Amino acid sequence: MGELLRRFWLPAMLPDELPEADSAPVRLRLLGEDLIAFRDTNGRIGVVTEQCAHRGASLFFGRNEECGLRCVYHGWKYDLTGQCVDMPNEPAESNFKEKIRLTAYPAQEYGGLIWVYMGPAEHVAQLPQLEWALLPDSHRSVSKWIQETNYMQGYEGDIDSSHSSFLHSLLKPAEAEDDGKTISALQKSIDKSPRIIVRTTDYGFFYGAQRAVGNGTFNWRITQSLLPTFSLIPFIAYPANARVWVPIDDGRTMTFNVSFNAEAPLTEKDREWRRQGRAFPPEILPGTFTPKRNASNDYLLDRELQRTASYTGIFGVNDQDRAIQESMAPIYDRRREHLGTADGAVIAARRNLLKLAKDLEQGIEPWLATHPEAYRVRSMDVNTTLADLDVVVNEHRLALQLDGAPTH
Amino acid sequence: MGELLRRFWLPAMLPDELPEADSAPVRLRLLGEDLIAFRDTNGRIGVVTEQCAHRGASLFFGRNEECGLRCVYHGWKYDLTGQCVDMPNEPAESNFKEKIRLTAYPAQEYGGLIWVYMGPAEHVAQLPQLEWALLPDSHRSVSKWIQETNYMQGYEGDIDSSHSSFLHSLLKPAEAEDDGKTISALQKSIDKSPRIIVRTTDYGFFYGAQRAVGNGTFNWRITQSLLPTFSLIPFIAYPANARVWVPIDDGRTMTFNVSFNAEAPLTEKDREWRRQGRAFPPEILPGTFTPKRNASNDYLLDRELQRTASYTGIFGVNDQDRAIQESMAPIYDRRREHLGTADGAVIAARRNLLKLAKDLEQGIEPWLATHPEAYRVRSMDVNTTLADLDVVVNEHRLALQLDGAPTH
Amino acid sequence: MGELLRRFWLPAMLPDELPEADSAPVRLRLLGEDLIAFRDTNGRIGVVTEQCAHRGASLFFGRNEECGLRCVYHGWKYDLTGQCVDMPNEPAESNFKEKIRLTAYPAQEYGGLIWVYMGPAEHVAQLPQLEWALLPDSHRSVSKWIQETNYMQGYEGDIDSSHSSFLHSLLKPAEAEDDGKTISALQKSIDKSPRIIVRTTDYGFFYGAQRAVGNGTFNWRITQSLLPTFSLIPFIAYPANARVWVPIDDGRTMTFNVSFNAEAPLTEKDREWRRQGRAFPPEILPGTFTPKRNASNDYLLDRELQRTASYTGIFGVNDQDRAIQESMAPIYDRRREHLGTADGAVIAARRNLLKLAKDLEQGIEPWLATHPEAYRVRSMDVNTTLADLDVVVNEHRLALQLDGAPTH
Repeated sequence: MGELLRRFWLPAMLPDELPEADSAPVRLRLLGEDLIAFRDTNGRIGVVTEQCAHRGASLFFGRNEECGLRCVYHGWKYDLTGQCVDMPNEPAESNFKEKIRLTAYPAQEYGGLIWVYMGPAEHVAQLPQLEWALLPDSHRSVSKWIQETNYMQGYEGDIDSSHSSFLHSLLKPAEAEDDGKTISALQKSIDKSPRIIVRTTDYGFFYGAQRAVGNGTFNWRITQSLLPTFSLIPFIAYPANARVWVPIDDGRTMTFNVSFNAEAPLTEKDREWRRQGRAFPPEILPGTFTPKRNASNDYLLDRELQRTASYTGIFGVNDQDRAIQESMAPIYDRRREHLGTADGAVIAARRNLLKLAKDLEQGIEPWLATHPEAYRVRSMDVNTTLADLDVVVNEHRLALQLDGAPTH
Repeated sequence: MGELLRRFWLPAMLPDELPEADSAPVRLRLLGEDLIAFRDTNGRIGVVTEQCAHRGASLFFGRNEECGLRCVYHGWKYDLTGQCVDMPNEPAESNFKEKIRLTAYPAQEYGGLIWVYMGPAEHVAQLPQLEWALLPDSHRSVSKWIQETNYMQGYEGDIDSSHSSFLHSLLKPAEAEDDGKTISALQKSIDKSPRIIVRTTDYGFFYGAQRAVGNGTFNWRITQSLLPTFSLIPFIAYPANARVWVPIDDGRTMTFNVSFNAEAPLTEKDREWRRQGRAFPPEILPGTFTPKRNASNDYLLDRELQRTASYTGIFGVNDQDRAIQESMAPIYDRRREHLGTADGAVIAARRNLLKLAKDLEQGIEPWLATHPEAYRVRSMDVNTTLADLDVVVNEHRLALQLDGAPTH
Repeated sequence: MGELLRRFWLPAMLPDELPEADSAPVRLRLLGEDLIAFRDTNGRIGVVTEQCAHRGASLFFGRNEECGLRCVYHGWKYDLTGQCVDMPNEPAESNFKEKIRLTAYPAQEYGGLIWVYMGPAEHVAQLPQLEWALLPDSHRSVSKWIQETNYMQGYEGDIDSSHSSFLHSLLKPAEAEDDGKTISALQKSIDKSPRIIVRTTDYGFFYGAQRAVGNGTFNWRITQSLLPTFSLIPFIAYPANARVWVPIDDGRTMTFNVSFNAEAPLTEKDREWRRQGRAFPPEILPGTFTPKRNASNDYLLDRELQRTASYTGIFGVNDQDRAIQESMAPIYDRRREHLGTADGAVIAARRNLLKLAKDLEQGIEPWLATHPEAYRVRSMDVNTTLADLDVVVNEHRLALQLDGAPTH
């Protein structure tokens, strides 16, 4: 599965982790590899293996200067490609440095994030043309935090419609906040066992959670699941939310949340609401990517609140998700699961990824990695009949395709 | 050995950990299994496996309501027997829930403690008719704390008479507290190498530590060792102490101490003295079962005190025991031991347990598990001749048997 | 390699860890063994295995009294040789104690340190006649701290001349302190790729870092590498520094630094300068051997300082070394190294130790362990021609040999 994930560009950092040219190098663990990221004198981003090729000193302590990262132990210096370009403790006439190259991965800023490609050079993927990635920065708020589980346990929460009627519900609707997400959650509480309709697509699948609203019409929460681990969450009113789940290693995950308005800049109120940690992102401890509510403090679970007002007694929507997903253990033993009809989308996501991983073992490269325009789809929260569902979804996709080339 | 322990009811919690009907669920690790304990709407106690059968979410975060424990992820609900009784995210017509049952263990309050039976349903044990368990609550003070060792390392301290002449002794008797335990300890310091007389019984064994007191008479500290890991500690005057050592897992143990007066309610002075942590229980960090004096702070060892007043320089009797027993490592490698004649009771306890474990492998169930009346014995601290020893002990047992059925 | 190290006396403690007769026993982990050190009633030093032979209680909690260490569990007592000399919980007529002996290692104070010999009794080494060890205490300042790496990663820093031109350099020479070490470091920055001349000797090897200073003359930093892990660091003016790297276990090391003046007592200014942690020793957290700047705080790395004044942005010379050496991981995987011509001395040290370890496997004992006079050599920082180098070094050695027997 790691090989498959390496076929795609993966978000790995927020741009302000590398705030300016020659700013301090930063530790980055990605797909189980310890790396160092830096922004060179020209503002370009380098991602190289953490250990200097000479004696193994960490390049975290390195000097980022004059278009390269220099190890402070003996002064060996590397450029963005990992090539050793200076070796001042060897005689000037030596050509030893030409033989030294660190593992390095292409990296670039795009859509408000720093992306890394860790796959083979002969199969370089293209950056996915996700709607949110093509918007100006003003229309988008990005965040990152760490979840102490395998990436699938987190990603599966995005494509599991039925849990929001329980985990995220309130006992006293009157106390609900004036926010699209909360209103939507309340609506979902009308029908807690929605029928799940899954449709496989070229980019992964979408699914609709079908809830009766009367008169032969249904409410459909259409969630987009885009390979490998992207999601677009249904919404009633902007800002909408998209997420990406990127493995740090088998037991830890970086979660990226993008809140965006495809039609207008985000307002200060939009941004302030996100800072409060009520949904996505959670409140994050300053100077870290660690959520304030975490396993070490039982997510600040308030049993009195749980008895009287909130289904869980835990503050934020993501806090609730993480509490549950982390409580499964970093990697849950799925042989102990008992999946029901409500878990159709979770099953679909696992099957799709496993199929692609097996294809890759046979030498079949993932089609989507080189078809970035296929990412031009949208999530929805719409009311329509079952007969009209596919028509409505396809109309939306067509409209996004016609927008043409990336505006970024 | 785990299979043998599962043949007996084991104390696992204090009743105030589950203070009232529908109070918060509590994590409980027992014999290496992660469990959740809860008190349902009717006040009955349930003990089920921690992970929800659906997706593995921890039921610690669950809602305890309307005679069952409900997982907050998708609302699946379980009753005391572990049966899934509600599955609101599946269609109403589904019978999926009938197929879902968590591992659950019978639990009940008895003798001031919550007991759990983790053995096979076809061999349910009976609750042991220990004298202290049959007394009214007023006559008893119970406590629980965690020791970071295998249960045998702790239990062996209870049946090791010779250590009290050293580990728990004072260098300046004049500073001794006015307490039966301390007085007894001083008396023991007269003869530090007592002869140990072990008598195997149907409930385990008792042993007498024989110390000469002159004129052909001996002082006998008669300790009762009751299968699997119960002890009754000799005493001169009430309150007496009884203990049970229950494995959390191979390297950690819950210790239960019961101080009781078989003839009268405990006084406030009795209870206050126990709160001071001078003997059993130790001082415990509020809101936890962790002793205040523990390995992380070297048990607040005071070297000056050790030089001038106390054999160890460590405050409480149990603090002293735990310091030594935890210093052996969580599971001591017994191949490095060198046992002497003073270790007769320790050897007897190990042999008894190993024999029963081997019997069980052959299909022979432990007789004691279904003969609860055999637990009706007492510890003693008496002066008598060797010839009269067995008579004295048997008279006591007979008297307790005649008390008849449990009064509880 | 552990067997080889056991052929030598190894420094293990500072004398003030055992400040007086019958002072508190101290935990000591050495070559992966858990030991207890104590100073008996006569002031002699004992080093025995940590666990009591009876039941495995830690002798850290023991009573150090009347020429022996007594376990507080049952009062068993051991002398300096590990022999059990008292067993008060067994009958007086028992001879059980004569059969009980703990593993014990000879230990003694010498040269301002406590040394331990962990090898076989039939091959007892002699204490090395290092110049600094033979001086009066007034001429010497000793210190000890813990490094979280294999001992070789630290030791290799002592014999790696080229790194000091980078790791320890300043960007603004004007801010240099008035100290021999710093002045020397500045001088080294003139030629950052010195030629390394290694000369194998009977005690290990010395190497010269050759830097041109004009007129056919070179500056030579002569570092002495003495088996197994001793070093003598070149110096321009006293105090000079010597170091020893002793394995706690495979991933942790005790570093000993000795600052000394062979000709005069150290001044209060010399001692005060060492307390500041600017070079060796680093600043150490009070009551521990843990450096204040360590991995948990990224060595208090100051990125602004790194940009403007110091190559690393880390305060002290040893802090800089440890940061880099610990960043390689506790045991660096050398298969990933790429050694150059500047690494000649590092390569020599590894080869020497490996050869001796292989010899020992063949039954060939290390010659040096029983030839302590071979340690009578000195480091140097001298200017001379290449032709005269060996003559200069040999003259120095000869002078030290003629000093005759130890003065201590």
